[in-house]
Amino acid sequence: MGWGDLGAFGEPSKETPNLDQMAAEGMLFLDFYTASPLCSPSRAALLTGRLPVRNGFYTTNGHARNAYTPQEIVGGIPDSELLLPELLKKAGYTNKIIGKWHLGHRPQFHPLRHGFDEWFGSPNCHFGPYDSAERPNIPLYRDWDMAGRYYEDFKIDLKTGEANLTQLYLQEALDFISKQQASQQPFFLYWAIDATHAPVYASKQFLGTSQRGLYGDAVREIDDSVGKILKHLQQLGISENTFVFFTSDNGAALISAPKQGGSNGPFLCGKQTTFEGGMREPAIAWWPGHIPAGGVSHQLGSVMDLFSTSLSLAGLQPPSDRQIDGIDLLPVILQGKLIDRPIFYYRGNELMAVRAGLYKAHYWTWSNSWEEHSKGIDFCPGQSVDGVTTHTQEEHTHLPLLFHLGRDPGEKYPLSFASEEYQQAVEHISGLVQQHKATLVPGQPQLNVCDQAVMNWAPPGCEKLGKCLKAPESDPKKCSWPH
Amino acid sequence: MGWGDLGAFGEPSKETPNLDQMAAEGMLFLDFYTASPLCSPSRAALLTGRLPVRNGFYTTNGHARNAYTPQEIVGGIPDSELLLPELLKKAGYTNKIIGKWHLGHRPQFHPLRHGFDEWFGSPNCHFGPYDSAERPNIPLYRDWDMAGRYYEDFKIDLKTGEANLTQLYLQEALDFISKQQASQQPFFLYWAIDATHAPVYASKQFLGTSQRGLYGDAVREIDDSVGKILKHLQQLGISENTFVFFTSDNGAALISAPKQGGSNGPFLCGKQTTFEGGMREPAIAWWPGHIPAGGVSHQLGSVMDLFSTSLSLAGLQPPSDRQIDGIDLLPVILQGKLIDRPIFYYRGNELMAVRAGLYKAHYWTWSNSWEEHSKGIDFCPGQSVDGVTTHTQEEHTHLPLLFHLGRDPGEKYPLSFASEEYQQAVEHISGLVQQHKATLVPGQPQLNVCDQAVMNWAPPGCEKLGKCLKAPESDPKKCSWPH
Repeated sequence: MGWGDLGAFGEPSKETPNLDQMAAEGMLFLDFYTASPLCSPSRAALLTGRLPVRNGFYTTNGHARNAYTPQEIVGGIPDSELLLPELLKKAGYTNKIIGKWHLGHRPQFHPLRHGFDEWFGSPNCHFGPYDSAERPNIPLYRDWDMAGRYYEDFKIDLKTGEANLTQLYLQEALDFISKQQASQQPFFLYWAIDATHAPVYASKQFLGTSQRGLYGDAVREIDDSVGKILKHLQQLGISENTFVFFTSDNGAALISAPKQGGSNGPFLCGKQTTFEGGMREPAIAWWPGHIPAGGVSHQLGSVMDLFSTSLSLAGLQPPSDRQIDGIDLLPVILQGKLIDRPIFYYRGNELMAVRAGLYKAHYWTWSNSWEEHSKGIDFCPGQSVDGVTTHTQEEHTHLPLLFHLGRDPGEKYPLSFASEEYQQAVEHISGLVQQHKATLVPGQPQLNVCDQAVMNWAPPGCEKLGKCLKAPESDPKKCSWPH
Repeated sequence: MGWGDLGAFGEPSKETPNLDQMAAEGMLFLDFYTASPLCSPSRAALLTGRLPVRNGFYTTNGHARNAYTPQEIVGGIPDSELLLPELLKKAGYTNKIIGKWHLGHRPQFHPLRHGFDEWFGSPNCHFGPYDSAERPNIPLYRDWDMAGRYYEDFKIDLKTGEANLTQLYLQEALDFISKQQASQQPFFLYWAIDATHAPVYASKQFLGTSQRGLYGDAVREIDDSVGKILKHLQQLGISENTFVFFTSDNGAALISAPKQGGSNGPFLCGKQTTFEGGMREPAIAWWPGHIPAGGVSHQLGSVMDLFSTSLSLAGLQPPSDRQIDGIDLLPVILQGKLIDRPIFYYRGNELMAVRAGLYKAHYWTWSNSWEEHSKGIDFCPGQSVDGVTTHTQEEHTHLPLLFHLGRDPGEKYPLSFASEEYQQAVEHISGLVQQHKATLVPGQPQLNVCDQAVMNWAPPGCEKLGKCLKAPESDPKKCSWPH
């Protein structure tokens, strides 16, 4: 989902009344970022509070490539990483993930081995092969065992876009919350729905209801579901004891537009890129009785802050034996403070850009290769900016491209290298970069090796369902990352 | 000002608390249009309720050219046109214009000859020559006589952008409202401020206060002023008797970006074009006690509707001897109805595009000429769309380019000519076009002839101020309209 997909963020159809209401009752973050323009690294960063370059969710296979966890991936979240749910356990929390995990699907990466107590959802994206007995469709798990597979047991009609998965995920969330309330146990729910990821889907009752097409139907169903979850918290009388945060793991995928791609508002490009459209996210904090209603924050925030903020809410300290990139946002959320901190825009293990205040310096520019672009793959359709949305990897480390995101949110007008404004801003940002790089210890790269043998051929529980497939011989290779 | 310049419309700095509050207390229009992508024709349409092609605010000098009323223009609003203030007089209204008139500056076009009772402002844009005794700077009038000239008597510091004009216009508005309230007279105030038109300006107290630079400072001052006007109405106890509408005359001028140009949100291109960025406008209706608070309307609206709606509010009928393009929006505003009507996008006298429902058909595409574009004049910076933002005038009258503005608000993905969706939508829209063209009687074109002799050399009252300049010999020529 993109920054521009919610009414509260200016989507011209205004079809998200529940999320808009959530914002009106809580705090809207206008300058909130994900940690990667792609799903897996972004989610790993959210759950570890650390940049993907630290937690291993990157590749060294190709410079500045976007890598994730397809079925062939050998790697996943290392045991050495401490995930938010593992830490919350110390404060007595029950942790549940509903929806997409994406931190690795081999047994050692299973979410229940990394702090979650319950799981209903899939380890990977709901990609194809769609309907094949020869290659595995993505499984859905209930806790340790698979409950079926996408397209076979959990239908997504690729022609109409109909699927009731968001409804299943919603019911699962409501039931979990009810159960926790009944047993008076604190809980962490990671509600990781994926209806707006291509192939986009919605339930029958939402199909055709949006002015925006199927993508809008999916947004409307998510909006409706969030409304039902918040209402459920209120009806159970625990809304004032429950902190809720809504955000997205990357910008809207413009390669899927217009039918399956969303809106990044006034920002440049989308998913896969380190322009604002790829990494600035819708974000809303909600906690009635604590967060003043109707607040708007310009705090530079990150999905990694949800790690530190959640720990703070639970009265816990972040681990002190490693670098944590997230910060505790409670002073921002509860007292309206502004914390000075930079945003680092990584693509793979390459620091592409840095934002400090309203200035953003690009040290590398790249959308995708000419080779890919000539095949019609365009991350910036209708938004080509000469020298900015480049199709070769352009290095600017000695003379970064600088934008003022207040005057120019769309990153269309680089500041003049000769201006005093440029020199002051770049000097400041370069200092931050130097500091950052000096202390950076990259993690073991997890997204380098692919192997057909590790696909979801025979997930645990497949025997009971008669859903086991025979894995081929192992043949590990470097993964191919085209973007 | 552009659609994307207000917080309520998703501007990422959210610096318009007063206008956002106005929207929260009133009704936000998300699909509201001006009648031309340029100022003079748009304002003529607002005040006459008629398309520029009918009221004469177009040129036949060049196909699809953007023409307006510079100092050299010979034409202006014809006496045969009935302006809103002329009609409101019949219901006892006192009418005042504060700010930019732009319907012609020769004596016969003076606003006090066309229904206004009072005027404080300028007949043209606050363009240069900036500081010249050889060619006239634009005068400001108080009623019949000039009160001074821009840059000479009413300063705009072109280096810092400082000017206190919005404050003068604000005070003028507050005083007029007080006076009308004291005398219990109904009033129509046309508050036509121009601080966001290049050269953009703001008062000292607003300079440097925006994250968006000087343009943002100007927006903030306008926002603050609107807040003060609304508060004034409330303090006088007449807010429930006063209908207020906020909108703009064209999209943000991206040629002036980033320092002096605003935001058109997710829409394509800006001022001068018939893409959404050129003609979709921010729009808010406010009338406490009558308009339900927090309403959002998808009614396709037009500045011309303000003519018909205002007449309706005053209990008057629109003239029946001519075609009026505006519709009465009161059923929309007060009862939440939706009225089916098309939007016609004209550039000069050429019908460039038509919107019906969520579909928009382009019959002609053009941004500006290659010749202009090669000089760096770009109405769509960073938004080039192949075959859409063309630099030659491309005719599509037989096979219009069709966009679905719900799925694709940015007009980047034309629908396939072969699709059933295309055929149905185009058939419908073509019927509307046929109907429209069959009954169209173009007005006498007012914007064809230019003459240095008609410039503001010696406006009435110049003698008293010693501000008369000597006009050169008359030498009427075809105006040159490069865009």
